[in-house]
Amino acid sequence: MRAYDIILKKRNNQKLSKEEIDFLIFRYNNGDIPDYQMSAFLMSVFLNGMDDDETFLLTDAMVKSGDKLDLAFLDMPVADKHSTGGVGDGTSLIIVPIVASLGICVPMMAGRGLGHTGGTLDKLESIPGFRTNIDKKEFLNILELTGTAIIGQTLEIAPVDKKMYALRDSTATVESISLISASIMSKKIAEGAKTLVLDVKSGNVAFMKKETEAKELAQKMIKIGKKFGLNTSAVVTDMNTPLGNCAGNSLEIKQVIEILKGNLKNDLFELSVYLSALIILNSKKASTIEEAESVAQKQINNGKALEKLKEIIRLQGGEVSVIDTPDSILPKAKYSREIKAVNSGYISYIDTRAVGTAEMLTGAGRERKGDKIDYSAGIVFHKKLNDYVEKGEVIAELAYNSSVHIDEAEMVLSDAYIVSNIEDKNIKMAGKVYDKRIIALL
Amino acid sequence: MRAYDIILKKRNNQKLSKEEIDFLIFRYNNGDIPDYQMSAFLMSVFLNGMDDDETFLLTDAMVKSGDKLDLAFLDMPVADKHSTGGVGDGTSLIIVPIVASLGICVPMMAGRGLGHTGGTLDKLESIPGFRTNIDKKEFLNILELTGTAIIGQTLEIAPVDKKMYALRDSTATVESISLISASIMSKKIAEGAKTLVLDVKSGNVAFMKKETEAKELAQKMIKIGKKFGLNTSAVVTDMNTPLGNCAGNSLEIKQVIEILKGNLKNDLFELSVYLSALIILNSKKASTIEEAESVAQKQINNGKALEKLKEIIRLQGGEVSVIDTPDSILPKAKYSREIKAVNSGYISYIDTRAVGTAEMLTGAGRERKGDKIDYSAGIVFHKKLNDYVEKGEVIAELAYNSSVHIDEAEMVLSDAYIVSNIEDKNIKMAGKVYDKRIIALL
Repeated sequence: MRAYDIILKKRNNQKLSKEEIDFLIFRYNNGDIPDYQMSAFLMSVFLNGMDDDETFLLTDAMVKSGDKLDLAFLDMPVADKHSTGGVGDGTSLIIVPIVASLGICVPMMAGRGLGHTGGTLDKLESIPGFRTNIDKKEFLNILELTGTAIIGQTLEIAPVDKKMYALRDSTATVESISLISASIMSKKIAEGAKTLVLDVKSGNVAFMKKETEAKELAQKMIKIGKKFGLNTSAVVTDMNTPLGNCAGNSLEIKQVIEILKGNLKNDLFELSVYLSALIILNSKKASTIEEAESVAQKQINNGKALEKLKEIIRLQGGEVSVIDTPDSILPKAKYSREIKAVNSGYISYIDTRAVGTAEMLTGAGRERKGDKIDYSAGIVFHKKLNDYVEKGEVIAELAYNSSVHIDEAEMVLSDAYIVSNIEDKNIKMAGKVYDKRIIALL
Repeated sequence: MRAYDIILKKRNNQKLSKEEIDFLIFRYNNGDIPDYQMSAFLMSVFLNGMDDDETFLLTDAMVKSGDKLDLAFLDMPVADKHSTGGVGDGTSLIIVPIVASLGICVPMMAGRGLGHTGGTLDKLESIPGFRTNIDKKEFLNILELTGTAIIGQTLEIAPVDKKMYALRDSTATVESISLISASIMSKKIAEGAKTLVLDVKSGNVAFMKKETEAKELAQKMIKIGKKFGLNTSAVVTDMNTPLGNCAGNSLEIKQVIEILKGNLKNDLFELSVYLSALIILNSKKASTIEEAESVAQKQINNGKALEKLKEIIRLQGGEVSVIDTPDSILPKAKYSREIKAVNSGYISYIDTRAVGTAEMLTGAGRERKGDKIDYSAGIVFHKKLNDYVEKGEVIAELAYNSSVHIDEAEMVLSDAYIVSNIEDKNIKMAGKVYDKRIIALL
């Protein structure tokens, strides 16, 4: 078998066999197949696609490139969630405490922010002392103690994915439904979850800009999950406006604490409760989605979710007094700039990707891997999609310490909003559905 | 400008600009753009194509990667021919002496055999002493003395093509009309020819198996040539049966000498005279194709073409007595094996690529670049497509010295022929047209 013939076959839009996919992934992970053959292969997959069988086999080969976590010893339902990335998406930080407080184990391996997207690890690390660089032994130990831990990619979970993703990122082969599915699912399967809830973003910031594509991606991942015996659900959610009231590391941590204290009920709260409810339902801790939603709500109301967050912070070395006095513990930006409406009207469009880029430019994110970030920088959203603004009213506020890129951030953020003087009925969505942002449950 | 964005654009099937194509080729040639980005780009071109403008711009960028030969000082019409490769295709060795004997300069940079295809350089090097590794100074000197020289890729002619071709060869991106066109034409344009005749092969051995694809390739190259101010003609010729009576280096040299002596009038002779006539016509040495054909014929009949071949051999250091006594000068294989018909009937199909592979396996060709070859090995064809054979009659004969791969060669060659007991009217072509193999003149 030769890599050449496998590339040729996919180039000719033919179906690959298990042996061929295993060979390619195993040898590429080994270093026997060079990047230039893999990138040609990835482009042929991007343009010709892979069917469900091939995507399953690709996922399986990627899982086999590393360890597979066995969490049976915990004797708990094991669940995980994955979101395909957005701006201000702090749902994990709310969902994990809620479901873990109900005895559902969540062995979460999260990522760092890059470009316009934030990362759960960065947000947590804005809490002084919080450690995410945790090895397998300690990880399993914390899981046993408290049923959850949120760590970085410290384990050998689908290591070939890291290599393939870096290559896709530099060869314009990221936004492929098959490749995204295999990348996400290989990690989730290797992590040992039995229940999986996927939040597939649709809209101008997402991989999948169109709803139909987002649904296709969600369906593909559900099929793969089921084939691996995982109880998999997916929701397609709207990302044409940032999620929550802010984007930035310590800003979002404070927001999470307020939500878990029951002080804030915004779209981030609604979506987090809904996704928690799906995990609760699929883990058989409730029999209907409505019951599961009220169970999730209850864990906020009775303070148990907040208590669980405190426990996570304590076990991972973070300063626990952040829960009671976030303002005195979390870093705060020194300066701020306001973005004001240039005319009165409805915010009819938000380029959410540009908002994410502006967030990065405040110092809150990374342009390149390894760049240092400013935990206290970010953006506070005063108005969101479909909100009415008076001319001169504040739409958003940039929080920053370094002024190096702040003029650019201000310009990018200003340009991200379109204020129309008529209400666009096509964009405006109705009431609760919009609060939850759920486009489809699959 | 970033390579990433150029890949993205072609991946999205958008038209590239001059600046983008120049950037990509210049930086790739420099080493600034890595192979893995170029191979993803090449696959996107393979699958999405390039239009005429883009292919012209790609060719131009490739020309600019190296030297451009200026042969104006010779004060002669400068012509060249290119064939897209076949089995037993020794036309260059006949055409060059014919047209050069008429005062048309042919600055030929030829290639070596690889896989199932033979190479003009290898054939010439089977003549003891013949040198093809000639530098620019000596090349121009020989051109001035005798109007032609056949040398290897010793000059900096479109050097990026070599790098791109090696990459295409290992990433299944060879058979792209745009990439083939730019690869061939960039070299021909840099070589300084003003008249160009292209022989585009069609059939089971060729890049372009279908006639329509071969015509498309021919038309693409004609358009590029004309845009560069070259007088370009192309013929599409049939390659569903080997050309000439043999395939192998010294075997083909002997055949060429016999043809130029006027002793042999087979399909190789017919096609060579026709292609020579096109060069003669386009170089204004005749006013009709018929006249040009008789001019070409005359140069064989009057011995001037043979004399020119002798001069080329002498100036490039080869043993000139090969012309008079080829059998005593050229190396000869020690052993032979016959392939016999297993039943009586018409040869209705020849897998010409397999014939080329069998030729390689005798030792006459290379599996990998740099492999040593056996100049005397090869195949003698007793029967070709549409010929009638009696059961047990010899179809072909393998000539060899080393028996290492000879059993495999025998098996591959036997399997290459299908003898049907009915004459297939669809495959059989009529009389002279078939002898010339011309499918279309464009």
